[in-house]
Amino acid sequence: MKISLAQLNYIIGDVEGNLVKIKKKIEQAKSQESDLIIFSELAISGYPPKDLLDYPSFVDRCEDAIEQLTAMSDDLGILIGSPSWSHLKKGKKLYNSAFFLHQGKVLARINKSLLPTYDIFDEYRYFEPAASVEVVEFKGERMAITICEDLWNLTGDHFYRTEPMEELRKQNPSVMVNLSGSPYSYNHVEDRRARMQFNAKFYHLPLFYVNQVGGNTDILFDGGSMFINKQGEIAEECAFFKEDLKTIDWNSASDYPDNHEEYRDYDIQLIHDAVIMGLRDYFGKMNFKTAILGSSGGIDSAVVHALAVEALGKDNVKAYMLPSPYSSKGSVDHAVELAENLNSDYSILPIEEVFQSFKNTLKEEFADKPADVTEENLQARTRGVLLMAISNKFGSILLNTSNKSESAVGYTTLYGDLCGGLSIIGDLYKQQVYEMAQFINRNGVIIPESIISKEPSAELRPDQKDSDSLPDYAVLDKVLFHYIEEQKGWKQIVAEGFEEDLVRYIVKLVDRNEYKRFQAPPTLRISHKAFGFGRRMPIVGRYHH
Amino acid sequence: MKISLAQLNYIIGDVEGNLVKIKKKIEQAKSQESDLIIFSELAISGYPPKDLLDYPSFVDRCEDAIEQLTAMSDDLGILIGSPSWSHLKKGKKLYNSAFFLHQGKVLARINKSLLPTYDIFDEYRYFEPAASVEVVEFKGERMAITICEDLWNLTGDHFYRTEPMEELRKQNPSVMVNLSGSPYSYNHVEDRRARMQFNAKFYHLPLFYVNQVGGNTDILFDGGSMFINKQGEIAEECAFFKEDLKTIDWNSASDYPDNHEEYRDYDIQLIHDAVIMGLRDYFGKMNFKTAILGSSGGIDSAVVHALAVEALGKDNVKAYMLPSPYSSKGSVDHAVELAENLNSDYSILPIEEVFQSFKNTLKEEFADKPADVTEENLQARTRGVLLMAISNKFGSILLNTSNKSESAVGYTTLYGDLCGGLSIIGDLYKQQVYEMAQFINRNGVIIPESIISKEPSAELRPDQKDSDSLPDYAVLDKVLFHYIEEQKGWKQIVAEGFEEDLVRYIVKLVDRNEYKRFQAPPTLRISHKAFGFGRRMPIVGRYHH
Repeated sequence: MKISLAQLNYIIGDVEGNLVKIKKKIEQAKSQESDLIIFSELAISGYPPKDLLDYPSFVDRCEDAIEQLTAMSDDLGILIGSPSWSHLKKGKKLYNSAFFLHQGKVLARINKSLLPTYDIFDEYRYFEPAASVEVVEFKGERMAITICEDLWNLTGDHFYRTEPMEELRKQNPSVMVNLSGSPYSYNHVEDRRARMQFNAKFYHLPLFYVNQVGGNTDILFDGGSMFINKQGEIAEECAFFKEDLKTIDWNSASDYPDNHEEYRDYDIQLIHDAVIMGLRDYFGKMNFKTAILGSSGGIDSAVVHALAVEALGKDNVKAYMLPSPYSSKGSVDHAVELAENLNSDYSILPIEEVFQSFKNTLKEEFADKPADVTEENLQARTRGVLLMAISNKFGSILLNTSNKSESAVGYTTLYGDLCGGLSIIGDLYKQQVYEMAQFINRNGVIIPESIISKEPSAELRPDQKDSDSLPDYAVLDKVLFHYIEEQKGWKQIVAEGFEEDLVRYIVKLVDRNEYKRFQAPPTLRISHKAFGFGRRMPIVGRYHH
Repeated sequence: MKISLAQLNYIIGDVEGNLVKIKKKIEQAKSQESDLIIFSELAISGYPPKDLLDYPSFVDRCEDAIEQLTAMSDDLGILIGSPSWSHLKKGKKLYNSAFFLHQGKVLARINKSLLPTYDIFDEYRYFEPAASVEVVEFKGERMAITICEDLWNLTGDHFYRTEPMEELRKQNPSVMVNLSGSPYSYNHVEDRRARMQFNAKFYHLPLFYVNQVGGNTDILFDGGSMFINKQGEIAEECAFFKEDLKTIDWNSASDYPDNHEEYRDYDIQLIHDAVIMGLRDYFGKMNFKTAILGSSGGIDSAVVHALAVEALGKDNVKAYMLPSPYSSKGSVDHAVELAENLNSDYSILPIEEVFQSFKNTLKEEFADKPADVTEENLQARTRGVLLMAISNKFGSILLNTSNKSESAVGYTTLYGDLCGGLSIIGDLYKQQVYEMAQFINRNGVIIPESIISKEPSAELRPDQKDSDSLPDYAVLDKVLFHYIEEQKGWKQIVAEGFEEDLVRYIVKLVDRNEYKRFQAPPTLRISHKAFGFGRRMPIVGRYHH
């Protein structure tokens, strides 16, 4: 039996567009004389469709698309994910379904049993879990078909009381299939492989695993669809961060040797590829072409600048140097040097005149109050307004250049450097930003060494350094990781060997700045706990972790 | 048996503070010789605690607080909501529990069965549903204790396959108790009463229903705790939007006549009270004192100004008139007249100098491009920056003045009039803003008639009117309500009698502006479908509802 794994990049809500894409792959699989083509979870709607699912007209459109595919199905079996009406009198109105189409009929509708509802996942918000599961017979095989999370309970946190695969096992399956919507994070690639390999080995069955690929605003899907042999070895693997179609000529008698690309558990190459894809898809799927950014001569904007040029092309990115009276001469020079290395356009717009006019306008109101953080924020906001004006005038999207460390402790100005349509490196701690800079320079200098080696500074008052306000980033990033990624309370972090006062200070800063992050742009997610949709904290409250 | 309903205003995460409050009420109930005091759902942690529940140290603190209460419990039974560890090997790690404490012991732990996971509710994100339910015996009564949603399935959308109260009924209960965390929305008060009355009548049992009260960022709890007699009549009712303790001397032989305050299903008085409470609690719980706002002479800022003065006191609110060259003279005059009616401080800061300096700075970059929406946004953003500078300098919180209609269609400037710590009327459609203005003037003119009767205008270019860009608000608000609150697709809305082109245009504007709303401030929620946490739409996508 020939089985095709169709790993595609869908647009959420674009049922018609997704259908066109799906039909093309069906034709391609037919030309390869495939018996079965497998698409990923919720392929019809795009994943995650979020509250589009609250619109009955949207679900109807998805079901219409399935009807169209059913009508055109012939000897090639089609297995594809779509939301569908549950028609239950009691329970949620929808299922997260996989439709098995063959010879103009729906051979089976398989519903997802385990509905991830944590981090970025909200599936029980919409879907009723399957009440039962059944093996599907197709061309002599007994297929145990599951949807994503259905295969994660065995080796995961055991979030669910039921085990759909344990039920299916009782029905003597010969093959396992999983339709997935499994997003990238830097510790997820190896984890996902290991879990799927465990399943194949544990049940001693081959596993055909199909993931989607592509960036959907903040959430990035890496693909990496797999055919795992019954010994639990990855015999075939689709590309990462690219569309792919792989057809496997499978029969139970043959051997399929281990054959896949090696990645490390934490791999800056993959983080880089994820961010590039995220940037490209944000622009591509929104029909945007050009981007701008404020380039300060610091490491954060330098990395964003280089990534943007790689993702969008040098002619589609323009950097703006917006020096204030407190900017060092080096700052502009370094930013210009970078732009020239990238062979990309730039302009220099000093902010002093606007900054002075703000101070004039506020002179009477502020009377003789001394200068404080207000004036620092005024500079950052002047830059934000200038960049947004340019964005409006030329239809270019402003890229946000904040990193996760500063976003965590609120070392950012709301409506200033927090402006932008998309945050590119907002899920990278400061030390990861340096790591990315080194990676960008792997084949020769793009980001000038002067930018990498200089001491971080916001340059919003004379001789300011980040270290005036913040602990050393090497320490800060570690404490933040314990608090944000690992959800440790301050006592547990202190027990890891950090100073109590420092830990409590950092934790307090994180808690206090929920209000700023609430209004931050969407952030490309590369960790398993990014700010944004996956981390939902109260704004009004008191916490003393 | 004397039963006390303790309706309190908790602070999320403030376990120690909530405990102090709870202990005081226990003392008060004792002084009234009560047998049982009932607190609301998740009283210990505050509700909704969101991802604080992902911190084990936080859950431990909640369990510690329950231990403290257990140790101090004596003949007065205490029934109180708290998160607790499930200690399950399979399933979620937490329960949403009600602890029944008596004579130094935990008499029972009742876990919530039905976990609302829709709109603003995320409970299955954290909690495992109860596997079983049992009546609790206490002083001769058999108590059927449930938590909030557990009593909503019978009359609601039947989102769940199980009915905990049907299980409890088999165990011959003599009394029903419900610990609730039921937020206000303008169609929820009568709905909640009706559903709880139905339960009492259906099971022919008295129902003691305890809700919390208070504003938690965007979500507003109205209280209205009830004792419903077994005929389904509301015999006692706690205050709305205020803390309250009511002790009911109950025995099964007595009659408890119907006795509660009448409200209409849609009542501007309640919306007003909800917003006032939301404003007050946002400031009170964050330890903020003073507020500022931009006052344009238009209806939106006028209503926010008046509400803020009522909620925070005239000495704690300052309005800023920020006229541009395109502002009519009337605008400043009307805003000043309002400030004087409110006897509240104000300043006038013309934005022309800053606006000109922005244009100068951008002159070369913009070359000979004609003026467009860029220059309109520049004015709005100049105002935003001025207000934020004042906010920074004086530690005053900027109130956002956007309404739901303009927020829906994106007739707002990101980082301009979308600035602010809290949106006060962002869940009121334009026509509801007028209704609120009339309500504010119910006992005499506060908002000048000139503000109410003028044609809406953003005044960002000469002679601009909202009606140049937008349909009449009477039509717009209706179409938006169909689309947002009722989740109708455009075809269904057209079928209601609206023009197809108009409907599709409005729907497109709503879809396109998700990115702006994503960065908007939290919004006091008064409808059953507010923008923000309760409505989660993709940003990148294509929809054609």
